[in-house]
Amino acid sequence: MNNDLPKGFRAGAAAANFRKPGRDDLGLIVSDRPCVLAGMFTQNLFKAAPVQICQEILASYGTARAVLANAGQANACTGEEGLANCRETQRMAAELTGLEAHEILPLSTGVIGPQLKMDLWRETLPTLVQSLGSRDAEGFTRAFMTTDAFPKFASRELNLAGGTVRLTVMAKGAGMICPNMATMLCVALTDAAVERQQWQAMFGRAVEQTFNRVSVDGDTSTNDTILGLANGASAVEASSPADLALLEDALTAILAQVAHMLVKDGEGAKKVIHITVTGAPTEADARTAARSVGHSQLVKTAIYGGDANWGRIITAVGYSGIRVDPAAVSLKLCGIERFRQGQPVNDHLEPELTEALKADNIPVEICLGSGPGSYSFQASDLGHEYVSLNADYRS
Amino acid sequence: MNNDLPKGFRAGAAAANFRKPGRDDLGLIVSDRPCVLAGMFTQNLFKAAPVQICQEILASYGTARAVLANAGQANACTGEEGLANCRETQRMAAELTGLEAHEILPLSTGVIGPQLKMDLWRETLPTLVQSLGSRDAEGFTRAFMTTDAFPKFASRELNLAGGTVRLTVMAKGAGMICPNMATMLCVALTDAAVERQQWQAMFGRAVEQTFNRVSVDGDTSTNDTILGLANGASAVEASSPADLALLEDALTAILAQVAHMLVKDGEGAKKVIHITVTGAPTEADARTAARSVGHSQLVKTAIYGGDANWGRIITAVGYSGIRVDPAAVSLKLCGIERFRQGQPVNDHLEPELTEALKADNIPVEICLGSGPGSYSFQASDLGHEYVSLNADYRS
Repeated sequence: MNNDLPKGFRAGAAAANFRKPGRDDLGLIVSDRPCVLAGMFTQNLFKAAPVQICQEILASYGTARAVLANAGQANACTGEEGLANCRETQRMAAELTGLEAHEILPLSTGVIGPQLKMDLWRETLPTLVQSLGSRDAEGFTRAFMTTDAFPKFASRELNLAGGTVRLTVMAKGAGMICPNMATMLCVALTDAAVERQQWQAMFGRAVEQTFNRVSVDGDTSTNDTILGLANGASAVEASSPADLALLEDALTAILAQVAHMLVKDGEGAKKVIHITVTGAPTEADARTAARSVGHSQLVKTAIYGGDANWGRIITAVGYSGIRVDPAAVSLKLCGIERFRQGQPVNDHLEPELTEALKADNIPVEICLGSGPGSYSFQASDLGHEYVSLNADYRS
Repeated sequence: MNNDLPKGFRAGAAAANFRKPGRDDLGLIVSDRPCVLAGMFTQNLFKAAPVQICQEILASYGTARAVLANAGQANACTGEEGLANCRETQRMAAELTGLEAHEILPLSTGVIGPQLKMDLWRETLPTLVQSLGSRDAEGFTRAFMTTDAFPKFASRELNLAGGTVRLTVMAKGAGMICPNMATMLCVALTDAAVERQQWQAMFGRAVEQTFNRVSVDGDTSTNDTILGLANGASAVEASSPADLALLEDALTAILAQVAHMLVKDGEGAKKVIHITVTGAPTEADARTAARSVGHSQLVKTAIYGGDANWGRIITAVGYSGIRVDPAAVSLKLCGIERFRQGQPVNDHLEPELTEALKADNIPVEICLGSGPGSYSFQASDLGHEYVSLNADYRS
């Protein structure tokens, strides 16, 4: 499948040199007609200026026509001046594109604190708007990368009763990734025609099943935003229960695909830990236990080092705060059972386990008892590359 | 001040070669008379066998005469066999010392999962008991070190109305350190005579003010235990309100001294982050915010790298879950205000801040508003040394 955007969307990118020279750090997507908008945003108390403005647009209009994204500057913790600057970037882009300012969704990522370099915005926006025209997802995606090791995007087509529609998802994120939200920035586009409330509802469910179940470092950023724009340019309606179910399945699948790319690129991550908890009293308990394991520095460093130190996994379950009977708990690491009903087992399989831990994908299966609650979660490991990237991110 | 134990206590150590040959990994402290016992234990659901047995002794007897500690094997997640093994080590030590088994408090630290190597215990315990006699705190402390870079102990004397009493605290812990508990293992000894309930009460308060306010990696282990033994061998009673207050002050001060050593030695830590939160709606809110900052991988790596990336601190406050007005929040890093009432300030002091971040102790002062709640907390940074130590701890 190629990387074309859905019908009616065009993309562009330009280099404003916000932080690192010689790379695109400003991206724009424009739809040739209004899009029905869905959005989910960071739960962080300190919401970046662009997050606040996207939330305004979603609440007041529910539609949009463009996404304006930048890397290098988060425009977070920037107070009133930050909000005014963000509105000014919308206004300038509106003037250049002929859109209304409130049709332009701002997304920012980068260092927290500094005010936007407005002179660079003023200089570069005309070039950015002139660059519009590409149907390719990669250029826009590259423009909002920060510490990402690779661009993250995917497209797929699906056949509804009325014809074929297309979905494209573009995301950035490698650090500060945690539920809720799992990514700093993500844009999902489709040319299907879908009713606004149904789009937001399926979007929320799909994000909960995918992006909210991955973690790199447990830090939920000030800027995390995921937007869904459906412009209907395919002239194919998704309105029957069957078509809506097909669209939701495809949306969930493509978001899962991109979410896996995020955790795989967890800053400096080498491995992805796939945590499955079953047998919990409730799904909430299963989620608490899974996240506790996925956030444990000691588990993440052990997996990074290929150390079969399974006791750290049990320890993280134990301090997660859930209440279960320790004597009912079992654990498989890489498919090998090492803890059964509260007792260590299969000591002699340690060499096999050590060998299995060399893989890139590490399954961790925890059974907490006989309850109905289950949850799955993906986390990255924690290694030297993470420390190197984050000890001096800004320089 | 020398490193002598309080009156009536003797210590010994021996090398059982549980994990690393050529070092002492078994330690014993014996009091010449019964001690009043205080204890606090891990909140982890999976309590190691020795933790369960210490809890039994505290609940059933409230007194003890000896502490038997080992490194290299945690005896955690070891089921019924682990409990039986732990009781067998008590029984063997009782036979060799003439004490009752229930007078001997077991402490274990090391790898989770493997059963105790009982043959090595059997072989080494006679040597250990023969080694008893030292009045020095260091030998015992070295015997229960694991990844500790240095032994952690302190002594002090204080004058009560009836004469001088002595306090000695010995602790191990560098990884898996988090509230509650802050250390894996800690033993506090005094020769003061103090009533049992008063001793436990002051002990609980002193631990809450000290050990429960430090963090290395947020992982609360299966084995965390802190014991207080008061044998009265000085013949000086602490019973008047004035004397009890003096003893509690001294206990709090010495525990704070050792807790600082723990966080300073946070596995591979170079720096200690001193987080103070004020102006919170409640103390609980202040604690939640302080711990969120102290546990943030992104804050810890930035401090490690000397990066003045203060936005990560604000971010960690923002996702901590507390509810405050972002526009009322201010932050000083190394005494330099960078965020005031929700707005960034003092950009031009960045060079001074970068210079100040080279220090070993990094003050972080967060004001959340005008509420009465405050809390202070110490956390270690996160660097390459932590990853190296923990990626392959067992080999």
